[in-house]
Amino acid sequence: MKINVVKSVLAASDASAERNRSTMDAAGVLCINMLSAPGSGKTALLERTIPALEPERPCAVLVGDLQTTRDAERLGALGVQVTQINTGQGCHLSPKQVAEGLKTLQLDRIDCLFIENVGNMVCPAVFDLGEHRRVVLLSVPEGDDKVGKYPVLFQKADAVVLNKIDLVGVLDYDVGRVQDDLSRINTRAVFIELSAKTGQGLEGWLEWLAAQRPGG
Amino acid sequence: MKINVVKSVLAASDASAERNRSTMDAAGVLCINMLSAPGSGKTALLERTIPALEPERPCAVLVGDLQTTRDAERLGALGVQVTQINTGQGCHLSPKQVAEGLKTLQLDRIDCLFIENVGNMVCPAVFDLGEHRRVVLLSVPEGDDKVGKYPVLFQKADAVVLNKIDLVGVLDYDVGRVQDDLSRINTRAVFIELSAKTGQGLEGWLEWLAAQRPGG
Repeated sequence: MKINVVKSVLAASDASAERNRSTMDAAGVLCINMLSAPGSGKTALLERTIPALEPERPCAVLVGDLQTTRDAERLGALGVQVTQINTGQGCHLSPKQVAEGLKTLQLDRIDCLFIENVGNMVCPAVFDLGEHRRVVLLSVPEGDDKVGKYPVLFQKADAVVLNKIDLVGVLDYDVGRVQDDLSRINTRAVFIELSAKTGQGLEGWLEWLAAQRPGG
Repeated sequence: MKINVVKSVLAASDASAERNRSTMDAAGVLCINMLSAPGSGKTALLERTIPALEPERPCAVLVGDLQTTRDAERLGALGVQVTQINTGQGCHLSPKQVAEGLKTLQLDRIDCLFIENVGNMVCPAVFDLGEHRRVVLLSVPEGDDKVGKYPVLFQKADAVVLNKIDLVGVLDYDVGRVQDDLSRINTRAVFIELSAKTGQGLEGWLEWLAAQRPGG
């Protein structure tokens, strides 16, 4: 029966995610799943974030992309453990891929693992990877209508980060519209405005990160 | 057997796409499937394009989004036939959804149908909707690494449109890198640079459109 197949796939996926979470809990590693459209600046934000956390909070990254090791190369230049997961035609990271990725990392040497998901506002939203926190990035050039158009992604976010705010003056962008849309579907998520390029607003993001711990 | 199920789903999808194409061929309608990441400017480009084609080449639009009728409202303001298809959690338009959409339109009154797909650089790439031409948009703020990272999307493109070129001076963007990546996977697609916001480069896009006809 079709529906049973689908259910068992999702149940297996969730069980795999729980195993990942247990693995990271046991190692005392905080895991953050970062999701956004292509080009919102996930890698650029990590390029800013990781040097600000190191060496007090050593980091590692699992990077998902269909093809290339471009993001892993950028992040590897920071001197941290990075594993690129190429999904081929896959539209999201799966908990099984993350489990394979975890085997490549020395978890006892890190405090914080960032998972940079495949750039996609739809499919990654429905897959728990075993993360402790889920961060969704928006960026100003994408336009201020995206929370309403891709609500599933934002419903489960713990933090929504609006990146590229250095372009607010250059482009038409109504931050209030975004916050209005978000308030209708998720009252729990913190909303952080920053520019990974200029560093503006980064302190709010780092403060939020500093308050996050594994578990829960 | 799993693989047979998958094959039969794809075969049914392709058959449905062929029926859509036949319907549009019979009506003499050119159908263009537009794909890109969220916020690349598909709607903005159509807001520029449709008034330039009307009334000589009357247009209609099928718009795919998970939620809201925001894009349909923008395009409906142009006075053309527009049907919004809300996919819920669906990550791409399917040929069956397009078939339903076609029933809502008076095809004998148009020459050109634009399908604005769900904003997603992964999943829409593998679904033929019955279009005659496939146009993939990029935009400058997304960064110049996207063709290499999402190659499947670009392999089947008839035209690749780089939008928001008014931001090339503001942001770091290497057009040559994009063209290099594209030349490795698709030597057939035309490459058009424009700004839907300022109108710069629009004539190249309109010339390409003027040369396209149903069939083939």
